[in-house]
Formats: sequence, C-alpha cells, structure tokens
Amino acid sequence: MRMAGLSRATGVPVPTIKFYLREGLLPAGERTSPNQSQYDDQHVHRLGLIRGLTEIGGLSLAMVSEILGAIDDPNLQLHEVFGIVQRSVTRQITEQHTAGEDLRFDLVDAVMREQGWQHAHNAEHRLAAATLLSIMERLRLNHTLASLKVYANAAQAIAEVDMAGLMQHESRDEMIESVATATVLGDALVSTFRRMAQTAMSLEAASKPTPTGQVS
Amino acid sequence: MRMAGLSRATGVPVPTIKFYLREGLLPAGERTSPNQSQYDDQHVHRLGLIRGLTEIGGLSLAMVSEILGAIDDPNLQLHEVFGIVQRSVTRQITEQHTAGEDLRFDLVDAVMREQGWQHAHNAEHRLAAATLLSIMERLRLNHTLASLKVYANAAQAIAEVDMAGLMQHESRDEMIESVATATVLGDALVSTFRRMAQTAMSLEAASKPTPTGQVS
Repeated sequence: MRMAGLSRATGVPVPTIKFYLREGLLPAGERTSPNQSQYDDQHVHRLGLIRGLTEIGGLSLAMVSEILGAIDDPNLQLHEVFGIVQRSVTRQITEQHTAGEDLRFDLVDAVMREQGWQHAHNAEHRLAAATLLSIMERLRLNHTLASLKVYANAAQAIAEVDMAGLMQHESRDEMIESVATATVLGDALVSTFRRMAQTAMSLEAASKPTPTGQVS
Repeated sequence: MRMAGLSRATGVPVPTIKFYLREGLLPAGERTSPNQSQYDDQHVHRLGLIRGLTEIGGLSLAMVSEILGAIDDPNLQLHEVFGIVQRSVTRQITEQHTAGEDLRFDLVDAVMREQGWQHAHNAEHRLAAATLLSIMERLRLNHTLASLKVYANAAQAIAEVDMAGLMQHESRDEMIESVATATVLGDALVSTFRRMAQTAMSLEAASKPTPTGQVS
C-alpha cells in the first residue's frame, strides 16, 4: 500500500507517519518510484506499536525510540530488554528524586525481602520505589504505606502471568516485542480495572448512610 | 515565608510557582506589601500535591486543575470526586477509540460479571477497557487477554485497601484529597512493584538454560 493507504489502515495521519519515518521510528518503505514507496503489514504493525506505547502508555518518543531500538537489536538478551522497557516508569519517578532527601529505602527493602525480590537489586527500581514512598508519606497516604504488602502481592501475581505469557512466544522477536507491549499496556489495564473496582465499591459506600456526616 | 522560601521548601522553581499562581492551581498568598506575599504550610502541601499528580502521575495541568477544583468544591460527593479522578487514566485511553471499530466489550462485560462490578456500569470505564483490550488484541497480547482474571483480581485487592484507607480519614477534605493522590500515585506504585517482580523473575529465567536457543 502507499502512504495514504497506510494512514487509512492505521488511523495515523500522513504527517505523523512522515515524522516517524524521519525520526527512524518507522522503517522506510520499499521505493517504487522517486516519489513513492510501498508499505506493508509490518508497517501497520509497527505503527500500532508506536501508538500503543505513546498514546496509551504515555511514553515520550525518545523512550519509544529506545524501546524500538531494543526490539530491533538481535544481540540483546531478554533481561536487558526488560531493563530498558522497565525504565519507562521508574525513570519518570527517579527524576523527581532530590539529592540529600531522606528516602524510605527501609520500606522498600522490607517489601523486597518479604517478596523474595532482594536478589534482583536493581538500583534504579529501588530508588524509584523509595522516592515514590517518600512522596506518599509527604502527602500523608499513611494507609497506602501500611498496605504495601497488598500492592506487592498484586504486582507479583500480575508479573507471574506476564512471565508465563512471555515464555509462550515461539520466536525471540515476538517475545521481545511483547515484553514492551505487555509491560506498558498492562499498567494501563491494572489502572483501568482498579478504577472499575473502586467505582463499584464507592457506589456501594454511597448507597449506605455515611458515618456522622463526614462525607456530605 | 516569602516566595523564595516557598521555592526552597518545595524545590519548585519560582517561575513555576508564579505560573501555578496565575493558572489558579495554587491559591494566592497573604499580601503583606504591594510586591510581597506570605505563603504557609498549606502552599507547601498544595505544591507537593501538584507535583505528585503531574510529575509522578503524568497528568496534564488541565487534569490537575480539574482534580484540584473537585478537592476544593465542598458540594461534591465522594463518588463524584472519584469519577473526576478516575478519568485521569480512562480518558487517555478513550481518546484512542476510533468510531466504528470493533471493540472487545464482550471481554470487559465478562470481567465485570465475574468480579461483581456490573452494577457500576460506568460507560467511560467500560469503553476504556474495551479499547485497551482491542489494542492488546491487535498487538497480539493473547496471553494477557487470557489472563484478565488475574489482572482483575489484583486490581480488586488493591481497590479494597484503597477504599478501606479512604474511610479512615477523619475529615472530608483529607478524604477527598487522598482519593486523588492514592489513585494516581497508587498506579505508579503497582507499576514499580510489578517491574521489581518482573526483574526478579527475569533474572531467574536468565540464569537457567534457555529452551532451544530461542532467546540468545
């Protein structure tokens, strides 16, 4: 298909496709004349991947470019790709870290010990978690801080199906790509389900009489 | 404290504070002379809130402004504030929905039935979940689609502690504010823990011999 067809097939506007081509996020099509190229299903797929990561995952184009580079690099090991994809969230948090601040590494280390994650001491994840917990403490989310085990167990259960799913892929390329998409889109899925559950529970709470009129 | 002191206390640069004041995200200080105002702990706290929502939660300023408006509105009921906060994620997803697309409402409805969420049929959440699952299907995340129950159970467990924590607050204002912060920062916490768990499991997998060399 030509570029207009690629745009129709994916819903991505032509100027955006041109931008992705210029930035190297999308591989060039097969040139059929000086002004025309042909695109195929691989381009459709790659555009879906870029949109999923940017628009649902909220990743920057720089981050997407790094992830696509990891997918396209045949020499990377699976856990190295994991490392790159995982930074998509933790980097956003560690950037908020102010040197000299007292961070709650104690809480993070307790969670890691309890969950059996301590052998995988990734300094960036540990810093991200400690930064996040310190911000939560500052915002007085004491109950969340007292419920870390529930959060960690939920994350563990999800990570287990993530890994099991990953191992079912037959080719390395599929496996590598699904590390990226399952991680980034999976975050959005948990968040969306969490909101659905909260809505169900908050409607139930609203239908009951409120205690001493605290919530009017 | 003066504006320079507020900046030092929070790590937020003076021009950013001025911008938040102009945009109405931060209430004005108490004017002590034509060119000077005094700021207090409430300003420090509000700046922490704005930063948590924008920098960790990745929310737009428009979204933060909407949430702060909900926090400051004494007439809103708790479940209405929930509705506003929850859109912070689902809106980002529903915007990706293309009219006429076949969405996986069937999968969403099955999850809602199984989890007992069906009485809280929020059209926006349902559309967000269906859009997300359709994008996952297009990206061939079949294993994730087959594991929705694990994701939903994890989300349910977290939502339960969220709601329990919420009910422990003594004042309506604290409760309302923590709806926003616990929801937005809680997402980041699950994502971070999920990455820590994935890292632990991926390192374990890397230390074992790989099956038929699929992952080199």
